[in-house]
Amino acid sequence: MMLITPKTLSGFKDRLPKEAYAKAKMLRSITKSFEKFGFSPIETPHLEYAEILKKQGSDEIQKEMYHFLDHGNREVALRFDLTVPLARFISQYKNELGLPFKRYCIGNVFRGERAQKGRYREFTQCDFDFIGTTSIGSDVEILEVIYQTLSDLGLKAFTIHINNRKIFNGLCEYLGVKDSTVEILRIIDKIDKIGKDATKEELKTIPLEIDKIDFLLSFIQKKQESSALSLLEELQDYKSYNTTLKEGLEELEELCKILQNLLPQDFYKINLSIARGLGYYTGIIYETTLNDLPSLGSVCSGGRYDNLTQNFSNEAMSGVGASIGLDRLLAGLLELNLISTQDNVANALLIPLFSLAPSYQCAKNLRELGVNIEVYPQVTKPKKSFQYANKKGYKWVIILGENEIKNNNYSLKDMESGEQYSNLSLKEIKEKITL
Amino acid sequence: MMLITPKTLSGFKDRLPKEAYAKAKMLRSITKSFEKFGFSPIETPHLEYAEILKKQGSDEIQKEMYHFLDHGNREVALRFDLTVPLARFISQYKNELGLPFKRYCIGNVFRGERAQKGRYREFTQCDFDFIGTTSIGSDVEILEVIYQTLSDLGLKAFTIHINNRKIFNGLCEYLGVKDSTVEILRIIDKIDKIGKDATKEELKTIPLEIDKIDFLLSFIQKKQESSALSLLEELQDYKSYNTTLKEGLEELEELCKILQNLLPQDFYKINLSIARGLGYYTGIIYETTLNDLPSLGSVCSGGRYDNLTQNFSNEAMSGVGASIGLDRLLAGLLELNLISTQDNVANALLIPLFSLAPSYQCAKNLRELGVNIEVYPQVTKPKKSFQYANKKGYKWVIILGENEIKNNNYSLKDMESGEQYSNLSLKEIKEKITL
Repeated sequence: MMLITPKTLSGFKDRLPKEAYAKAKMLRSITKSFEKFGFSPIETPHLEYAEILKKQGSDEIQKEMYHFLDHGNREVALRFDLTVPLARFISQYKNELGLPFKRYCIGNVFRGERAQKGRYREFTQCDFDFIGTTSIGSDVEILEVIYQTLSDLGLKAFTIHINNRKIFNGLCEYLGVKDSTVEILRIIDKIDKIGKDATKEELKTIPLEIDKIDFLLSFIQKKQESSALSLLEELQDYKSYNTTLKEGLEELEELCKILQNLLPQDFYKINLSIARGLGYYTGIIYETTLNDLPSLGSVCSGGRYDNLTQNFSNEAMSGVGASIGLDRLLAGLLELNLISTQDNVANALLIPLFSLAPSYQCAKNLRELGVNIEVYPQVTKPKKSFQYANKKGYKWVIILGENEIKNNNYSLKDMESGEQYSNLSLKEIKEKITL
Repeated sequence: MMLITPKTLSGFKDRLPKEAYAKAKMLRSITKSFEKFGFSPIETPHLEYAEILKKQGSDEIQKEMYHFLDHGNREVALRFDLTVPLARFISQYKNELGLPFKRYCIGNVFRGERAQKGRYREFTQCDFDFIGTTSIGSDVEILEVIYQTLSDLGLKAFTIHINNRKIFNGLCEYLGVKDSTVEILRIIDKIDKIGKDATKEELKTIPLEIDKIDFLLSFIQKKQESSALSLLEELQDYKSYNTTLKEGLEELEELCKILQNLLPQDFYKINLSIARGLGYYTGIIYETTLNDLPSLGSVCSGGRYDNLTQNFSNEAMSGVGASIGLDRLLAGLLELNLISTQDNVANALLIPLFSLAPSYQCAKNLRELGVNIEVYPQVTKPKKSFQYANKKGYKWVIILGENEIKNNNYSLKDMESGEQYSNLSLKEIKEKITL
């Protein structure tokens, strides 16, 4: 028979136990954080009618979409994010769900991007959204969830950069280029990638006069020196430019007044250069960077949108939400050594030196005490099973030989120090291996 | 703008919070059970080279496979199970992983089946396999995991039906129809669906003489009256027919001798009619039915195979594993009322009657005590927020009005009894709502 070479598609990734277990632990922590705030899970399919996905997302995302004809000749597509399916979901079930509606959704999405280091064609998103309310409370809460979720993952130094799309809209309005706002935003969004000079050149093609470009760029580069509220205080005068700017600044003030007693000040700041290229944001927006790995980019971004369901309904549906890029965040946690990687998910390996039946019995009793136990599946020479323990990185090995079975006690070996303990009871073993 | 009707593809399913939360709780319990035994998670992509998936699975599964050309003109396909990707994975990384290797994998698979009630084109499988060992210990452990996992989910009455493919092979050998074993198996596998008479008719076309058919059918219908070991005792004489039959029966004896002190007797039995149609099983096999819902079919099936990686390597790779059909099991748990469904994942809803900032502060303090708190995102008339609490099915509502803020204490309402408690501290609230 012809053999097939075992390989994954370019841009797709297997996860071996070390990384898959780290990711599983992350997901447990993340869902727990979401649920602390009363966000409920929902699930939507990986495949949707292509028509539903086709009307949203940038041209680039549209080009990268995986779509094809199914067995019934329907044009179907793999989802490229969790937001478009959410819009479809909300439109479909809004009467049943009731508003406001808070959901989280964790799932894989697919984009046929050009393959490059650290970018995959299938990746995991963790979205959480608060739909059907314009209250500043929902913006507050999304930021609180970001802080809590990242803190719960063990991160001790990150910054949530906050801005309001209305400020930028108001500035463009003031400069008389309101109709080009989205275009200008898309260019400015790339400033960190392409640099200030190239940004200026691109902005000229809008067309935008050089003094207006300078005005815009100097505005967005105003830095927060002390607190968020003090920067907002400095920007008071801009409120008189127009109502859009006024609203934008006042919303940030309201937000930051609540945040000041809720989040530690070091973890968030006003950053007027945050743009979030995506067309659908309309209010407060944010990105999150790890202080020790700024080059990683944003690990959690989001904001407020006013027209989530515009392709499905004429009724406006406002909401606010954010998305954690799980693969990127996992890479960050691994690089910062904030998540342990191990091959084994058990606390100890039990090695049967004499007979299988009592070994499985002993493992069962230990599991009932709440510890995870792997049993080496065969009575073999100690060398082979100890090699396995080493390969898997087990610190603790429980040994069950003829004597131990006869005396109804157990031996334990510390594989790191080489020390061996004898005549232990199950409880003593539990205490040692869960220290 | 033309509006799009929001809908899912036929055979695909959304899960609203009630069901998605029930499923999430199930998955947490299942992964915890797998990890008790030292099974590690792995992840493989949803998309694979079609070539890799095309050589395995029945003709029917092949027809149902979703495959298409990707952006790079590669023929790709959505996985239809987690076993073929496992075979690819093991072949690809076996040196890195080391053997024996125990993994679990939870993920969605896709089959373009004819749409019918309770059958979906995308569904979730939970697979756990023990690769690279022929030791009876690994068969024991897979059965132990099935028992533990289902018990941990709250199931109190289920039966693991155990058989050995070698017994059937040995019988066919004895009857001189060894080469038709797989064909005969496939027919007998359908006996519960099509009935005894239709099975006989089909078997005649093999061709198989009527006395041989009767011999086969009467053998597989021998019932276990008391214990597994006592049925095996009754079958002693068959060991002399040939070595295949002998091996099959002896393996079951060895297995059941270890199981008798490990699993309660009511939860497993020898069932000689279990066939597992799939060609790749070669040894001990099993299916699991819920005693109170036998019509649901098997919720967890599996067995031993000798040639997992045959399409990728000439080296034989033995293993044993099983798969939980999560959607079917969830349907069963829901029908048996063994899993609670609720719209809310929080312990209580906090309603701000006066001001947002202290409400978020209070919720934060409660969360730090370990309870999940949802905050109604707006200061509104009580009617509206209490309606929301009712709609979401909250039993507990924490009320934060002007007095409560001034006095630094809290009011709590039991929405079921209508009773209201005042002047509570955070700790008292925690105690009440987590009772």
